[in-house]
Amino acid sequence: MRVRKKPWAEQELQNNPLVIQNAAEKKGKWAAYFGNENPIYVEIGCGKGGFLTKNAEAFPEVNFIGIERQQTVLAVAARRAEELPNLAFVWDNAKNLSELFEVGEFRRLYLNFSDPWPKKRTYKRRLTYREFLQEYRHIMGDGAEVFFKTDNRGLFEFSLNEFCADDWKLSNISLDLHHSDFVGNIMTEYEEKFSADGAPIYRLEARYGKRIESDTL
Amino acid sequence: MRVRKKPWAEQELQNNPLVIQNAAEKKGKWAAYFGNENPIYVEIGCGKGGFLTKNAEAFPEVNFIGIERQQTVLAVAARRAEELPNLAFVWDNAKNLSELFEVGEFRRLYLNFSDPWPKKRTYKRRLTYREFLQEYRHIMGDGAEVFFKTDNRGLFEFSLNEFCADDWKLSNISLDLHHSDFVGNIMTEYEEKFSADGAPIYRLEARYGKRIESDTL
Repeated sequence: MRVRKKPWAEQELQNNPLVIQNAAEKKGKWAAYFGNENPIYVEIGCGKGGFLTKNAEAFPEVNFIGIERQQTVLAVAARRAEELPNLAFVWDNAKNLSELFEVGEFRRLYLNFSDPWPKKRTYKRRLTYREFLQEYRHIMGDGAEVFFKTDNRGLFEFSLNEFCADDWKLSNISLDLHHSDFVGNIMTEYEEKFSADGAPIYRLEARYGKRIESDTL
Repeated sequence: MRVRKKPWAEQELQNNPLVIQNAAEKKGKWAAYFGNENPIYVEIGCGKGGFLTKNAEAFPEVNFIGIERQQTVLAVAARRAEELPNLAFVWDNAKNLSELFEVGEFRRLYLNFSDPWPKKRTYKRRLTYREFLQEYRHIMGDGAEVFFKTDNRGLFEFSLNEFCADDWKLSNISLDLHHSDFVGNIMTEYEEKFSADGAPIYRLEARYGKRIESDTL
């Protein structure tokens, strides 16, 4: 999503308590920041934050961190979000995960409607490209989970192949999420807007290594 | 595919040299039947045989066996097919694989446009239901391969989940085969007819255990 830069955005990011300043300093200390040992789930490309905020409301026993590289988009997310103790936003890039987290510090990653980078030569920028997947599982460690959804068939096909090539175990694969048996889907702003015209939403859950059986979500 | 029973079909199956009589007697002896040690690939539900015949023509170094449970359909396949030394048809049911083959006697299975059994309560009849997958890998042994395509989105979604649940490794997953980079697709009669209207064909390759690297197809 491209959004025109808004003059108030910089100030919002500086002043909103949900936005973490100097987030790299929290590396290894996120539990202390949240004040508990609850699991941490991260969304890369959280956009205007609707998905993460709704999750944070629904699941107070999980801490949610949204990462977004576009300043104005993240400012919108922070301004809209209710001030919840289990919600935080970071203005940063997906490539910097290892600067933000110790190995095993978070254990689930959400990728929702990531940029499809449809041109063939740009496939390495897709957030499900295998080098990203390797990075995700290195950082999350054993039991790493990626929950991914998109409306882009090409990106979903690419992602299925990348996850399989990197030996993730897939489950709950949907080729038409809104007409499936899947319960508990929390929609993003984009999904609400887009799915109204009836085109399918694709979704999968990917796990690496030992399955964590205690998940509640 | 449902076809009205034709009076000549029984005789065709008895007299056509491509059709194996008492096929269970060939169990463990298929190499002797073909007169060579070439790999054997099997198609379950070969229909009118176009896919298998074209494969047999294109790949003389592989032996192809088509299994079809509908008498008249198989009779059409046998009558249409060129008499090739690496092609054989068996009138039988997918459930009887272990009566037809020793463990490891064939190493790739094709499932093309299998009956989707779309009603929920009939999912156990789908040829990619996990009990079938388990049977396939038991019979094919290490390096088992299933190549699957369908035009039915629901069946493909189900199949993705079943293969993953049973720990097959997937590759070359296509959500729109005819507009993909995949080369060498050999179309079935159904596919030729159906794909003309532009609806997508779904395809995947599934492997279990050690990958056989010497494959030429």
